[in-house]
Amino acid sequence: MNIAIIGATGYGGVEVLRFLQHHPYVTNCFVYSSSQDGTLLSDSFPHIGEKDDWLLQKIDIEQIASTCDVVFFATPPGVSSELAPLLIERGVKVIDLSGDFRLKDRTVYEKWYKRRTAQPIYLQQAIYGLTEWNREQIKNAELLSNPGCYPTATLLGLAPLVRNRLVEEDSIIVDAKSGVSGAGRQASLNTHFSEVNENLKIYKVNAHQHIPEIEQMLTDWNEHIRPITFSTHLVPMTRGIMATIYAKAKNDVPVNHLIDLYKTSYASSPFVRIRKAGQFPATKEVYGSNYCDIGVTYDERTGRITVVSVIDNLVKGAAGQAIQNLNVMMGWDETSGLLFAPMYP
Amino acid sequence: MNIAIIGATGYGGVEVLRFLQHHPYVTNCFVYSSSQDGTLLSDSFPHIGEKDDWLLQKIDIEQIASTCDVVFFATPPGVSSELAPLLIERGVKVIDLSGDFRLKDRTVYEKWYKRRTAQPIYLQQAIYGLTEWNREQIKNAELLSNPGCYPTATLLGLAPLVRNRLVEEDSIIVDAKSGVSGAGRQASLNTHFSEVNENLKIYKVNAHQHIPEIEQMLTDWNEHIRPITFSTHLVPMTRGIMATIYAKAKNDVPVNHLIDLYKTSYASSPFVRIRKAGQFPATKEVYGSNYCDIGVTYDERTGRITVVSVIDNLVKGAAGQAIQNLNVMMGWDETSGLLFAPMYP
Amino acid sequence: MNIAIIGATGYGGVEVLRFLQHHPYVTNCFVYSSSQDGTLLSDSFPHIGEKDDWLLQKIDIEQIASTCDVVFFATPPGVSSELAPLLIERGVKVIDLSGDFRLKDRTVYEKWYKRRTAQPIYLQQAIYGLTEWNREQIKNAELLSNPGCYPTATLLGLAPLVRNRLVEEDSIIVDAKSGVSGAGRQASLNTHFSEVNENLKIYKVNAHQHIPEIEQMLTDWNEHIRPITFSTHLVPMTRGIMATIYAKAKNDVPVNHLIDLYKTSYASSPFVRIRKAGQFPATKEVYGSNYCDIGVTYDERTGRITVVSVIDNLVKGAAGQAIQNLNVMMGWDETSGLLFAPMYP
Amino acid sequence: MNIAIIGATGYGGVEVLRFLQHHPYVTNCFVYSSSQDGTLLSDSFPHIGEKDDWLLQKIDIEQIASTCDVVFFATPPGVSSELAPLLIERGVKVIDLSGDFRLKDRTVYEKWYKRRTAQPIYLQQAIYGLTEWNREQIKNAELLSNPGCYPTATLLGLAPLVRNRLVEEDSIIVDAKSGVSGAGRQASLNTHFSEVNENLKIYKVNAHQHIPEIEQMLTDWNEHIRPITFSTHLVPMTRGIMATIYAKAKNDVPVNHLIDLYKTSYASSPFVRIRKAGQFPATKEVYGSNYCDIGVTYDERTGRITVVSVIDNLVKGAAGQAIQNLNVMMGWDETSGLLFAPMYP
Repeated sequence: MNIAIIGATGYGGVEVLRFLQHHPYVTNCFVYSSSQDGTLLSDSFPHIGEKDDWLLQKIDIEQIASTCDVVFFATPPGVSSELAPLLIERGVKVIDLSGDFRLKDRTVYEKWYKRRTAQPIYLQQAIYGLTEWNREQIKNAELLSNPGCYPTATLLGLAPLVRNRLVEEDSIIVDAKSGVSGAGRQASLNTHFSEVNENLKIYKVNAHQHIPEIEQMLTDWNEHIRPITFSTHLVPMTRGIMATIYAKAKNDVPVNHLIDLYKTSYASSPFVRIRKAGQFPATKEVYGSNYCDIGVTYDERTGRITVVSVIDNLVKGAAGQAIQNLNVMMGWDETSGLLFAPMYP
Repeated sequence: MNIAIIGATGYGGVEVLRFLQHHPYVTNCFVYSSSQDGTLLSDSFPHIGEKDDWLLQKIDIEQIASTCDVVFFATPPGVSSELAPLLIERGVKVIDLSGDFRLKDRTVYEKWYKRRTAQPIYLQQAIYGLTEWNREQIKNAELLSNPGCYPTATLLGLAPLVRNRLVEEDSIIVDAKSGVSGAGRQASLNTHFSEVNENLKIYKVNAHQHIPEIEQMLTDWNEHIRPITFSTHLVPMTRGIMATIYAKAKNDVPVNHLIDLYKTSYASSPFVRIRKAGQFPATKEVYGSNYCDIGVTYDERTGRITVVSVIDNLVKGAAGQAIQNLNVMMGWDETSGLLFAPMYP
Repeated sequence: MNIAIIGATGYGGVEVLRFLQHHPYVTNCFVYSSSQDGTLLSDSFPHIGEKDDWLLQKIDIEQIASTCDVVFFATPPGVSSELAPLLIERGVKVIDLSGDFRLKDRTVYEKWYKRRTAQPIYLQQAIYGLTEWNREQIKNAELLSNPGCYPTATLLGLAPLVRNRLVEEDSIIVDAKSGVSGAGRQASLNTHFSEVNENLKIYKVNAHQHIPEIEQMLTDWNEHIRPITFSTHLVPMTRGIMATIYAKAKNDVPVNHLIDLYKTSYASSPFVRIRKAGQFPATKEVYGSNYCDIGVTYDERTGRITVVSVIDNLVKGAAGQAIQNLNVMMGWDETSGLLFAPMYP
Repeated sequence: MNIAIIGATGYGGVEVLRFLQHHPYVTNCFVYSSSQDGTLLSDSFPHIGEKDDWLLQKIDIEQIASTCDVVFFATPPGVSSELAPLLIERGVKVIDLSGDFRLKDRTVYEKWYKRRTAQPIYLQQAIYGLTEWNREQIKNAELLSNPGCYPTATLLGLAPLVRNRLVEEDSIIVDAKSGVSGAGRQASLNTHFSEVNENLKIYKVNAHQHIPEIEQMLTDWNEHIRPITFSTHLVPMTRGIMATIYAKAKNDVPVNHLIDLYKTSYASSPFVRIRKAGQFPATKEVYGSNYCDIGVTYDERTGRITVVSVIDNLVKGAAGQAIQNLNVMMGWDETSGLLFAPMYP
């Protein structure tokens, strides 16, 4: 099994490589870059070391199609919508970590992303890779659209409530917080150390492009779901997302009942771990791993349920889930190459 | 004017000192400590330097009462409820930074704080020092109960909405985030660097003792307000609080109307600054200063208002507001000794 | 007294403003920017607030010369070497925070900075503003060249040893560490949060342009001093420099003797504070202040002296020392507008 | 192969577990704790998760000896010196991560550690586990004393210079910097977040207990080596050590010659990676991995060599090297269970 990674010089790309190096069924990884072809990956990322180094190659569709079985795109917006169709036509499977194929509705995409969408035929063909809830479809995917980091944490946290219609459909508020690596490796004032360190910011209030992605899945699960309030904050840390989720319970619900529901919902999902009553996960408890840890409680005073869902944004929120989807697509054990404990501290 | 600070070896205490050193009307500060009397404050805090050093004295009520006009308590729970009455009986004004006198209702205090309350007569006498909204009462305070850090950010953010009855009374959710200095200087696993750094935690879910403090003030403003949902998160930074506040608007409300309302509400409050439409404050934008910066918007999709309110937890959330209250109690300009720009970056 | 700041949109520029706002003898500050003229400073730095806002003006030498008494340059390399002469010719005093006028020898400048130097006549005229050791010359300066951040910490730490010829002239090694704000506000991969956070880097090994600046002063003090080894490290924090300095003592020297020497050397220097025997300063102990704190010891096992010198790189290492020099140039008390305690924590 | 970990509730202990989970030849791990026996490890470390949880057992020498083949001690000073002999007598191999058996000379130990040493017979028997330079002895070790974190980085950086007698024997200065996890999990003011964050401290100047450990090995390599100067700094990050090493070259030495020497010296050491000329490693480039990355250069101006050596203090500086030593002791491939790429960013 040969794998290509297009956009290997970003954080998502190197994280895919970190895991694939230990993957039992992947023989070779080839790395491609539009801007740095001809250089070694270790020129950009010295942590890789000479022994495990890769040569960055020019993106040549024919060459990739003749060499590789699966292609990962870890590219900026607009790249995979151009190139993925060319690979699919040539029989290569594609796993896209960008947002290009996540929204089925072009007008929604163009409103939130402020750019042109991919071809509708591929939008329809793309399978949304929220592994825990789409396994059957993923098995047959040719074009896999890997979920965004915020949607992954949010949807895994909300699924049991929304699918079981336990909460008021117009009551969902998600207060999400992320480390800075989610913004990628491109330098900018917003990610400049002196601006971010010892600071906490809110950004894209009511305007984050992950809002329609979350709502698309929620309304798939329950068509009565109303628009959600979703806020994103930049936390002075490199990795980690926490989604703190609030929703009004339709009826009083004992905490243990909630926890049982969550445990049952994820009983066959090895990467989702549910905390005991009264306990909530911190982002570091999934650091560097593919886990999504969830705590949940109910407050009788207010009638609201609070769900806390944490992931490593670069792993379960990007590279790790992409490999999890690869495993499902290939019929391999879903955990292949991914069973690493979180690094703590 | 002579000032005493009891509990000068904590972060709140040294921060009171930092500001009082430059206060135009304060002549002397005396510092007291139950555990380190006889030592120099610079033994605990070398940043103070020899020239500006203070000798920590034993807490002796008679001596303090005969020397000082005003006493600041920056002490753990249970200290000021014991000692403040003795000083007030002796004609000394007290400004208490602890939570001992914040709740009027003993049963509420005992439920949330899990400890015995102060004497009811003093609970009733204590004036709640949310300066911007209680100036008239503060002018005559003998016993000033300085607000908690979270309540300060939250109440300043909510006041215009709640007082003007713009939001559904049962719809308020506050997702609050704090730097670690709010936990004080006492070492613990929860504040151990390797546990906090590169990590984000939620804590005291639905159980923070600041909840009744906030609700007490909100129901003073509008008796129909229902219990709020209030969550607290520990962010890997030293200073800063952000309260992200969500509430359902009773009616559609244009953003500019909201901003005008906030600007009008705080027109005579020099420490509250309202952002323009579309802009929201980051915690660093008030770093080290007594400002509370607020941004507000309305989302037509959801009918919800989002308010973002930031303070420096040790300044407007503690020492700075305490001095602001001192100024009001003494009839001085409210900004005396406090007009420092935030330190950025 | 009217002041102009050219380059007010950088960290050095806003820090000059932070202090000048409280300066007793400065009436007005005018701010200039080559790239953002016509905008408000608060558009770039919302922490400033509307009330204290400044309009950024185009750099117009005639207009500046007719309005201002002193001009601060907080600009990238190559700006002040062009513009400062035009102002000096018009009788305006200049305080330059950039490195353009620090080195007297053009060939040395061009070797280390890899760019053309200022006109030699101005290089000669420029007074090096290491306040504690150049006060007499500074009093009459027309063109004041403010020291670099690393040289300030290093030279204040070394002066008593070198001037008193206590150490072997070929034995000086300086291991310096800095927070990230020293790199300015321009975004780059080197200052990208995810690259810097939870990381420690060494940079410009044996090649930092501050090396000749330090050696120039050292050889002024003692012409036998040989080239020093000087290393710079980037620490994941925003502010602060520590210079850890090693030198071989010519003779055994008791620690208390060393400390006495340092105390005597800085007896009339209000911003240099010497620690007791066995104590060493941390960078946070001078945070936000103009202090330079120094600890020193001698190791009998090795015959070496270790000096630890810390400053806030944006204050004593830039804006604060610039104002200290302004005070000396104007004949004002050296501490005017600068006597703020460090912010801790 | 059954493994016991005594002191599994510290950072070193859980890190041993993180690696042993993926070790191809280790069947079972049993965890022991003197203070928390009877609880689950996940009660202390929720990141572990239920599925992979371990029950902490009481330390019972007979039970351990009858169950386990090798015992790791990740305990505070004074524990292994008591318990290890009991296990060795029972034929169990011991790998000790504490400092109890590192120094051969009791008087040296007692001077630097200020406590009583282990029994001399065991001090003599203990093999010092600097894997890259002691492989032959380690193969037969019954009692393996795992090096300290600072000595590992320092000695790997110095070995080629000292063993080949390239530097003046009295010229070695090591300026070392560490993340905070090296101080363990015990809460203290020194490791309190608000004291460490945005701060840089020097500590134990000329008094660190790792000094004699380094000197013992250096003088083994070259008996003429004189006492070294060694300083330790606390950097606001969780993981990582950098040793910046200075030494006077006996003769001019071209940089490429130096780099060749280092490459040759470590040609058969898979965990030591040498940077190209002009490049130096950052701590994050070995994050979470067992690598030691080294850069080296020579400065003609000063005649000094600078070596920069970085490790992850919890991996190559503790748990990782311990497992590397286990592999050597067992005759397994030295990299078994350890070949993980650094996590970046």
